[in-house]
Formats: sequence, C-alpha cells, structure tokens
Amino acid sequence: MKIGKQTIKLENTPKILQTSSMVGPKEKQGPLSIYFDLDTKDIFLGEKSFEKAESKMLELCILNLLKKSSTKAEDVDYIFAGDLLNQCISSGYCMRNLGIPFFGLYGACSTFCESLTLASLFVNANYAQKVVAATSSHFCSAERQFRMPLEHGNQKSPTAQCTVTAAGSAIVVPKDFSISGPYITYVTPGKVVDYNITDMTNMGSAMVPAVYNTLATHLQDTGRTPDYYDAIVTGDLGVLGSEIIVDLFKKDGINLQGIHADCGALIYNHDMQDTHCGGSGCGCMASVFSGYFFEQLKTKKMNKILIIATGALMSTLSSQQGESIPGIAHAVAIENEA
Amino acid sequence: MKIGKQTIKLENTPKILQTSSMVGPKEKQGPLSIYFDLDTKDIFLGEKSFEKAESKMLELCILNLLKKSSTKAEDVDYIFAGDLLNQCISSGYCMRNLGIPFFGLYGACSTFCESLTLASLFVNANYAQKVVAATSSHFCSAERQFRMPLEHGNQKSPTAQCTVTAAGSAIVVPKDFSISGPYITYVTPGKVVDYNITDMTNMGSAMVPAVYNTLATHLQDTGRTPDYYDAIVTGDLGVLGSEIIVDLFKKDGINLQGIHADCGALIYNHDMQDTHCGGSGCGCMASVFSGYFFEQLKTKKMNKILIIATGALMSTLSSQQGESIPGIAHAVAIENEA
Repeated sequence: MKIGKQTIKLENTPKILQTSSMVGPKEKQGPLSIYFDLDTKDIFLGEKSFEKAESKMLELCILNLLKKSSTKAEDVDYIFAGDLLNQCISSGYCMRNLGIPFFGLYGACSTFCESLTLASLFVNANYAQKVVAATSSHFCSAERQFRMPLEHGNQKSPTAQCTVTAAGSAIVVPKDFSISGPYITYVTPGKVVDYNITDMTNMGSAMVPAVYNTLATHLQDTGRTPDYYDAIVTGDLGVLGSEIIVDLFKKDGINLQGIHADCGALIYNHDMQDTHCGGSGCGCMASVFSGYFFEQLKTKKMNKILIIATGALMSTLSSQQGESIPGIAHAVAIENEA
Repeated sequence: MKIGKQTIKLENTPKILQTSSMVGPKEKQGPLSIYFDLDTKDIFLGEKSFEKAESKMLELCILNLLKKSSTKAEDVDYIFAGDLLNQCISSGYCMRNLGIPFFGLYGACSTFCESLTLASLFVNANYAQKVVAATSSHFCSAERQFRMPLEHGNQKSPTAQCTVTAAGSAIVVPKDFSISGPYITYVTPGKVVDYNITDMTNMGSAMVPAVYNTLATHLQDTGRTPDYYDAIVTGDLGVLGSEIIVDLFKKDGINLQGIHADCGALIYNHDMQDTHCGGSGCGCMASVFSGYFFEQLKTKKMNKILIIATGALMSTLSSQQGESIPGIAHAVAIENEA
C-alpha cells in the first residue's frame, strides 16, 4: 500500500532468507574482509576478459546464495539484476546459465536497492515465493569503460571513488517461511534529481541531492525520525558525499551523525589502500549489505536499518556532450521486527 | 498470483487508460502512419545530438500521454522506462524533467513489455493508482553506438533490421477507473535463452528461441491455445525471425499462421523503404502497440492480444569478444473483457 508521496508499506512483510557476497583482492584486504562469503585473488576469475570475469563473479555469488539457502535454481521464481556495463552484459550473460525468469534493471549504483525493492514487492504481493536480487561491478571492466584503459595508469582525483570488484545477492521469501530473517517493511523508490554537477570524478557530490530527496521523503512518508534506525546506510556517497549529506540534514535540524554510514566509505581503509573517497559501483552496497549489514541484523547487533543505494545516471557520452550528472536513490527499510 | 511455471495472473485486472506514440520521418512514411500520435520531421528534434533528441522524443511522448489521459505528472505514482543507449541515458535524462519516481530497466528491445509488466503488477497489487511504462529508440543514436557512424554510409546485410526512431508509452490504472480500457490479464516474464547465434546483423534469428520459450510457457501456464488470441504480436523478430517462429511452432503441431504479427515487420513497407528485415529497437513495439494495436482494442477490431517483446542482450564488446547473442522475451496478455 502506498503511503505519503512515494513510499510503499509492505504489509505482508516479506523476509530476507539469505544473502551472499563475493569480492576481489582489494576488497578482501579492506576492513570488512571477514564478512564476505567468497573472494578471488585472480581478477580474471580464470576468464579471458574483465567483462566475462564480472559475469562469472555474479554467477558464483548467486550460486553461493542458492547453496546457502538450500534453494535450487529452478525453485527461484524470478530474479532482478543489473550492473554498470554497457547493455548490462554482466547480468545478461550470467542469467543465460541460471535459467531463472529475469528482469534486467539499470539504476547505476542504485541498482541493488532497486532490485531488492522489486523482489520484495513481488513476494509481498504473492506473485512469487522466492525472488532473488543481485548486482555486480568490477574495477577493471568499469575503469576501461568509463575512464581509461588500466594500462594508461592514470592518476585519480582526490574526490574520485574506486569501482569495487564485488557482487552481492539476496533471496526474499514470504514471512511465514520457517527460517528466521529480517523483514522488508517499507520501500521508497526515488526520483531523478540533478543539481548540475558535471565533474565525473566527484560522483559522491553529484548523488547527494538524490539521497537528500529520497531520505527526506521517506522520513516524511513514514513519520519516522533518523534515530528510529540503528543505521541509515547509503551506497555510495563515499567520504566526501557522506560529509555533505550529514551537513545538508543538519541545516534542516536533523542529526544524522552517528546514524549515517556509507558502504563506499566502509569497504576500504582509505589511508592504507589509496582509495581516495572510497568505493562505488553496483557491487559495493550489494556486497557490504549482503556481507556486513545482514550479519549485523542476524546477530541483532542492529535491528532496524534503512539502506539507500544511489546511482549516477550519466554515461561517458553524456559527459562528453557537456551534460550534468543526474542522480537517483532508492531506499529499503529492513527490520528484525515487523 | 503465479500460475504454472512463470506466468502471473493479474486477478485485479488493471487497465490501460491511455497510450501515446511518437515516431521519426521514416516511420511516419510507413504503413502505420495514421496510427501514431506525434511525429517529427527533424531527427534532431531541435537538440544538439542524437542522444539528446531521443531523450526529448521520449519526454514529448510521455507528456502527450499525460495530456491525452488528463493526468498531471505529479499524479503519476511511478514510471518504468528504459532504452538501448549505454547507461540508458535516454530515459535517465528524460526523467530528470518529469519528477516521477523512476525504475530504470534494461531489457534491450524487450523493455516495453518488461515495463508494462511491472507497471501492471504495481497497480494490480494496489501499490499505485497510476503507473507509466515507456521506452524509446532512435535510429541515429543506435546506429553509431552499435554499428557504424552514419557518415560511414555502410551497407546493411539482407537479414539486418533498422532501429526505429520512435517512442511509446502507456498509463496503467486500476479496473474501477471510470474510463473504459483494455485489461492486463496475464504476464509471462521470460528467461534468457541463447542458441549460439553470433551474427549481430541477424538479430531476429537470435531472438526466436526466447520467443519460442516464453510463448510455449505462456500457452502451457494458461492452458490457452494460440487461436484464443486475435493476434500474438512479437517485437521485433522482423521478417525472417517471423517466418522462423511460425515454422518452429508448426513442428510442434501449433499453427501461428494468421495469428502471429511482428511490430518490426509491420512498421515499414520493406519493398519501398529499403528496410531489409524490418524495424527493431525499444521504440518499435512501444510505438506500434501504443499506436496501432491499442486502437484495434479500443475499437474492438481485436479483443484479445498477446504482446511479446524480445530483446537481444549482447553489447558491441561482447560480440567483439566472440560471445553469442542471448535473447529474452516477455509476454503480456491484454483483453477487452477480464
């Protein structure tokens, strides 16, 4: 049921049965290392190209999800997935091997919350019993598509973020499913917001207005205040964008300090790993939620979190044509009690 | 409610309140000319690039939909949209101006049925009262992204299809809405199917297996036979793919002759317009359904149709890496009586 301006209350409170995450070598060296299910030392994963490697990583992540949740691929009703590559080939080729009815999504780095939103809404409406949400990104495939060939060895701007090599996935089931799991209670799909930022190396700042819009709307629609949540988790504003979003809400008299966290800021040790403003990419929130935050919920260290995945909807071509960077942010509330 | 393997029955039978279509000069010269709402003689639509022109066309198409259905943008709950461009910039930039909560999709040329499926399921589940589905494509932006710069003037293979310059959109509302309109009764989301076709200039053939899979599943899940429908409309197998799909079902003893139609085959006069195997692109089924078929339903010349949009999920990069072309097809049943 829709409440307020753009939030949907999931009255049948579907639950997340299980999650799965897989990361590359750099992410495995980061502070969240122990929370990831799978990792690879070989950035090619035995494949012949970075794109095939990314697709393989997404597939391994989903196969691990099925294994962890004792689910056969043929028992998954639908899968929602997407990635950053042109024509979303990481997801498309991965799905070829899984044989699950597939909805392809593109929301840039907001795609994990977009896929989790739609998966949850499908289960909530009794359209399906088992729906998977999954996304991936790969530093090397993203770098050569959006920036420079790796061989170029270019320097990064201090405001830049690193696309993570990671995949994450979650399987959503109805609340009467016997195994315990946190519930999806509300979703707030976002609008496209553009504050005329044109610097492709400062994506955190470009996406802040979309997060502000979606979070403010979510709080207004649900009547909640930020301190209702144990954590409000964005992905990925990075270090700089995180400072800006806290400042912005402060001006409205709303305190996010100590409540806000950002997957891009969490995934690397910035001083040691030379990652500037942190991580980004479809796989960042996907892996950090599926790894770290799901564990916090399962162990009751956190009981109520709001995850807000943020996407920058430009392309290299739109930037070359002088366009600014539109942002979007989708929010999903996940709670241990429904 | 899910029935059979992968079909969802829409028990609350949402209806299509209105549609809108816009086409370029070549499509306007085709046999369906009179059915399109808007057209442009200027392929740039006054913009500075083909990509901006495509985004503008999608926006004009949606604004016309709102006008035709006496709906304000702020009264639209959600919009599902996508296109063929890298990072779906046609939709992303268009949404910036509309201010409607947005779900970005990528399903290649299957995107219109993907968006109509999700829009209908949202209304059916009472998540929303007014949801828009929209897609676009542009010959010039597609040609230079997927094939060759226009200035190159390359010849096309006899099996090739032309990406149409067109946009289409539909607004879905609950069945109790006062204005009459055809109902969405069933949706059958598709699986990714790959029969190892590698020829990017023969996309119709590459997508046939996906159509076969989705249509066979739809018939099995619903217990219907093809002659239940006044038309089974694919988009876009083109002339060659259309022959193959009829042949394939013939081998199963199922006759599609006289029932099957294809948007890519319908939109051009192939002998006069030098369009080889016909049209393709996200805008092809979007405009042909929103223009021609919606009119057939409204005037009761047809009462039951099944539309099946088909997408080829490759990219130029995956083809350069020697990959075959995976296909997907999503089916939506639209009927005057529910």
